[in-house]
Amino acid sequence: MHDEYFMDLALKFATVGEDQTSPNPVVGAIIVKEGAVVGFGAHLSAGSHHAEVHALNMAGENAVGSTMYVTLEPCNHYGKTPPCTMAILNAGIKKVVVATLDPNPKVAGTGVTKLKDAGIEVEVGLCEVEAVKLNKAYFHFMKQKLPFVTLKQAITLDGKIATVHGKNENITGKEVQEDVHRKRGQTDAILVGVGTVLTDDPLLTNRFTESKKQPIRIILDTHLRTPINAKVITDQTTQTWIVVGLEVTPDHITSFAQDNVQVIQLKTKTIAIQDVLQELARRNIVTLYVEGGQRINTSFIISGLVNEMITYIAPKLVGDHDGMGMLEDLEVKSMADAVPLKLQQVDRIGDVIKVISGVGV
Amino acid sequence: MHDEYFMDLALKFATVGEDQTSPNPVVGAIIVKEGAVVGFGAHLSAGSHHAEVHALNMAGENAVGSTMYVTLEPCNHYGKTPPCTMAILNAGIKKVVVATLDPNPKVAGTGVTKLKDAGIEVEVGLCEVEAVKLNKAYFHFMKQKLPFVTLKQAITLDGKIATVHGKNENITGKEVQEDVHRKRGQTDAILVGVGTVLTDDPLLTNRFTESKKQPIRIILDTHLRTPINAKVITDQTTQTWIVVGLEVTPDHITSFAQDNVQVIQLKTKTIAIQDVLQELARRNIVTLYVEGGQRINTSFIISGLVNEMITYIAPKLVGDHDGMGMLEDLEVKSMADAVPLKLQQVDRIGDVIKVISGVGV
Repeated sequence: MHDEYFMDLALKFATVGEDQTSPNPVVGAIIVKEGAVVGFGAHLSAGSHHAEVHALNMAGENAVGSTMYVTLEPCNHYGKTPPCTMAILNAGIKKVVVATLDPNPKVAGTGVTKLKDAGIEVEVGLCEVEAVKLNKAYFHFMKQKLPFVTLKQAITLDGKIATVHGKNENITGKEVQEDVHRKRGQTDAILVGVGTVLTDDPLLTNRFTESKKQPIRIILDTHLRTPINAKVITDQTTQTWIVVGLEVTPDHITSFAQDNVQVIQLKTKTIAIQDVLQELARRNIVTLYVEGGQRINTSFIISGLVNEMITYIAPKLVGDHDGMGMLEDLEVKSMADAVPLKLQQVDRIGDVIKVISGVGV
Repeated sequence: MHDEYFMDLALKFATVGEDQTSPNPVVGAIIVKEGAVVGFGAHLSAGSHHAEVHALNMAGENAVGSTMYVTLEPCNHYGKTPPCTMAILNAGIKKVVVATLDPNPKVAGTGVTKLKDAGIEVEVGLCEVEAVKLNKAYFHFMKQKLPFVTLKQAITLDGKIATVHGKNENITGKEVQEDVHRKRGQTDAILVGVGTVLTDDPLLTNRFTESKKQPIRIILDTHLRTPINAKVITDQTTQTWIVVGLEVTPDHITSFAQDNVQVIQLKTKTIAIQDVLQELARRNIVTLYVEGGQRINTSFIISGLVNEMITYIAPKLVGDHDGMGMLEDLEVKSMADAVPLKLQQVDRIGDVIKVISGVGV
């Protein structure tokens, strides 16, 4: 009972770091001695102290003989900071309660083993479901070696992302734009197809929130049709990675050589979503926010590699003839074969409905 | 301040009768004497006592010298019950506060005039906005001489009402079906096109709620293609009205002669929504629930005569090629020309999102 109370607090502390620790997970820790809290902390950004160290610093001498509750297995390796296991041992902690093991192969049970071997009592698994959920993108990334993919669309109530006549049409207004930019600031990378670059020439930066964090811009562009004067190339706010197919010439690639641009050439003529995601994972992209049009949406849904959809539904109707659907052909032959989503959250942003759903679950 | 408090209570009493008084409006009344409530009532079904009479019965002798608050102008004509103005005068009420005048041409100010002429103090307009909203269908019917039209669809998140291959496909499941049937039980009539009859052969009755109330079934069927053995014809639970065009022959119409079926022949070769609605209003249909497919949806939206949309959004994706859209062509050439909706209510029914929106406002 007490154990759950303290782990629940540690989970709450962990949430303070949400969307600012990537590629690291969020972690919370609390230190309890004789029923009293003597220290707590959270991991707040990659490269800074881990949660355990903050909590130990707060506890000081009181750490001796105490119990630490931590939402993720303490690390046992030298990364940007020294191993937390060492700090725990040095502080004289008596017992460590861990919500879940760290799926990172550099940790993966070695932290717990190290503590046990040193004579510390260790329990694993308290509030594990909540702890995994808190770092769903991180767990997915570590276990699947793929980014956690969020597919975003803004649609009319009858499912249209645009009219076939228009370009750069705003469906949802200012408040939703701010919500989208907030999400951009919380994600490692943002992806569109070259079609969007050619049609809308977007900046793809986070401009409407207090956070200065910018996602890397990724353009899927089989034949490297991105214009050299496109805003994603000329704007220096953040990096742009252009993913191209095998047939693009070295000269063509060289013409894009500049500080903020990388051209990533795949070993295939066409671009398979799975290959793109594996390449992005190798480059430490844990979270990917896909803001493409109809073709990109369709390719991603068909790949089966989308984790989450964010759909903004605007209260208006366009009709079939003049409207462009959210998706092309999915080869769905009956309603029973429809791609299933799992409704997670429904909010209102002014006159727009925001729907968050899991995909394929 | 006190006045508003009592009128607010009267409005609350009125809501008790919601969806069970058609073609009458809902009405609440409260009688107050020296600051104390001495009686209250609501209109509960057409043909039974009006709210004023229930409240007067409860007040008894205490009505003498009291103030009545009533959400709609008291009637001054003999309908199914005697005029309320007479009951108010006989009871010795001193003052009447009316939220709004009755748009029914049989009343329309004459109730207030009658009371004033008899020396009763009358105030009109307290909480008028709320009072009109409470009877939005009734006010629309009385002022426009048209039914209040609610258009219902169940769609996938990408806006499809069916796959092009399937028939009678369930998109939304049992809980939504119950919600739809509840609405059927609360509406005067339900409308589909003959296409739905030919494809799905539905019963179109209210079967999954405690209420036994059944809507009249209306089929738009220009050439009278409804099969004589269709369930809407053979099932005797409620009336079926088939609206047909000018070219259907008298013999053909006669072949449908049976107790629960009426064929309504328009004076035009094709069926215009406005003509249908005017005819239904003449037949005292105050509320109409349209459960049609793509063509009916489109005709109604284009007519501009839809008051409200209820859209059930199921968490699944079908894609463009194999999915049938909610609407056909609306002649919308840019997003700025999209048919505007006014979001009114967003609810979750299990895994399905229920959206209620006003149309064209």
